[in-house]
Amino acid sequence: MIDQVWSSSVARYIGIFGLYIVYLLIGSSIFDAIENPSVHNRIQLLEQGRNRFLRENPCLDRDSVDSYVDEVLEIMGHSNVTRPSYITWLFFASTLVTTIGYGQVPPLSYGSKAFAICFCTLGVPFTLILLKTITEKLMDMTSQFLEYLNRRLGHLYRPVHIRLLHAVLITTTCVLLVFLLPAAVFSAVEPEWTFLDSLYYSYMTVTTIGVVDVLPSSRIQNVEAEAVYKIFVLRKCVRCF
Amino acid sequence: MIDQVWSSSVARYIGIFGLYIVYLLIGSSIFDAIENPSVHNRIQLLEQGRNRFLRENPCLDRDSVDSYVDEVLEIMGHSNVTRPSYITWLFFASTLVTTIGYGQVPPLSYGSKAFAICFCTLGVPFTLILLKTITEKLMDMTSQFLEYLNRRLGHLYRPVHIRLLHAVLITTTCVLLVFLLPAAVFSAVEPEWTFLDSLYYSYMTVTTIGVVDVLPSSRIQNVEAEAVYKIFVLRKCVRCF
Repeated sequence: MIDQVWSSSVARYIGIFGLYIVYLLIGSSIFDAIENPSVHNRIQLLEQGRNRFLRENPCLDRDSVDSYVDEVLEIMGHSNVTRPSYITWLFFASTLVTTIGYGQVPPLSYGSKAFAICFCTLGVPFTLILLKTITEKLMDMTSQFLEYLNRRLGHLYRPVHIRLLHAVLITTTCVLLVFLLPAAVFSAVEPEWTFLDSLYYSYMTVTTIGVVDVLPSSRIQNVEAEAVYKIFVLRKCVRCF
Repeated sequence: MIDQVWSSSVARYIGIFGLYIVYLLIGSSIFDAIENPSVHNRIQLLEQGRNRFLRENPCLDRDSVDSYVDEVLEIMGHSNVTRPSYITWLFFASTLVTTIGYGQVPPLSYGSKAFAICFCTLGVPFTLILLKTITEKLMDMTSQFLEYLNRRLGHLYRPVHIRLLHAVLITTTCVLLVFLLPAAVFSAVEPEWTFLDSLYYSYMTVTTIGVVDVLPSSRIQNVEAEAVYKIFVLRKCVRCF
């Protein structure tokens, strides 16, 4: 009987999580398809501008203009002019539905703006359902941990003190797992990020504020950092419910 | 007696709202002060880069380089190189604490990153308290409206139908006030925004996702649009609770 309940609840988790992944994959494919012409258009505009600038100033060579523009964009915190990859759109779709929204890759075309509205109208509640499911599981685990503490320490301390100890342990674990550990991983994985950069990025992600100057791997292509980000998204549930 | 209760509740609202405004004003002054050297530094880096580019290519004149850089930054959706005004920081502070976080003005210095973490740790819960207060008021009003409908239509329709009518009316009013009306105001106030641009901006603000390509008045200085934005922030409560 317990086995049946357990396996049906596991099936439910796998089902919801699988559907969610499929939803994100379909969404990012659509963003990729819709935005392709707009990104192409932006690159074409940049090329037309450069060619006109080169024609007007014949002494210039193409490489020196390109490296100057790269320098300006890097100073402005805007380093990627290239076409976003599929992974970028997947990342983008997941930041939309979790309401983090870093905004470094805003949709350019009307099609993708309209699609973003539809995608989020279904996707944000879907994320909340997923996070609620995970949070219920986590809340169960914390209650079980309190019971365990009561069993082990009940004959030594008063209930109010055990509750206090429980609260301190849970809070410390959350701060460690949600802010400090991801920050440590980021500062190890991203060569240019200091610990404060990484802590700031973790904080802005977990609180869904999403105001960051650079994204992980935006300067260097680094797939591990994207994986770490996914952990952040799941951790967000701790705050949400 | 009722007068006393009413005036104490009004005093409470004014008190919380006043404190909140003071909190935002202090926060934006600190951001303004801390970020000033970093923004100055960014402008200096851009100038040094331009001067080196001009030295290396003596045929160029300063104006043509500047207008080319402006063109590139405009294509990249990055139009303001100038030092952000105090109003920009106030706008920024309020987007942080509401977790909207447009991210067009990310903090550059370590000081302001550290301050942003502290500012939000207190400011996000403070915003939630403010929104909770407003939402309680709005919920009261919708309950009173249901009672009114029951009194007026109770002898004509069954309770379940009156509840349905109530739900439809409230939803329509919310969609109108939260999405369509602000979108109409924005497309009227911002000459370059179509209705879909404005609807997209309203949607991304109210859902606190905050992925937008341009902010109101980022191209033209337009104070009305900032005022309209404040209405959005207050409306957010409808979604939050």
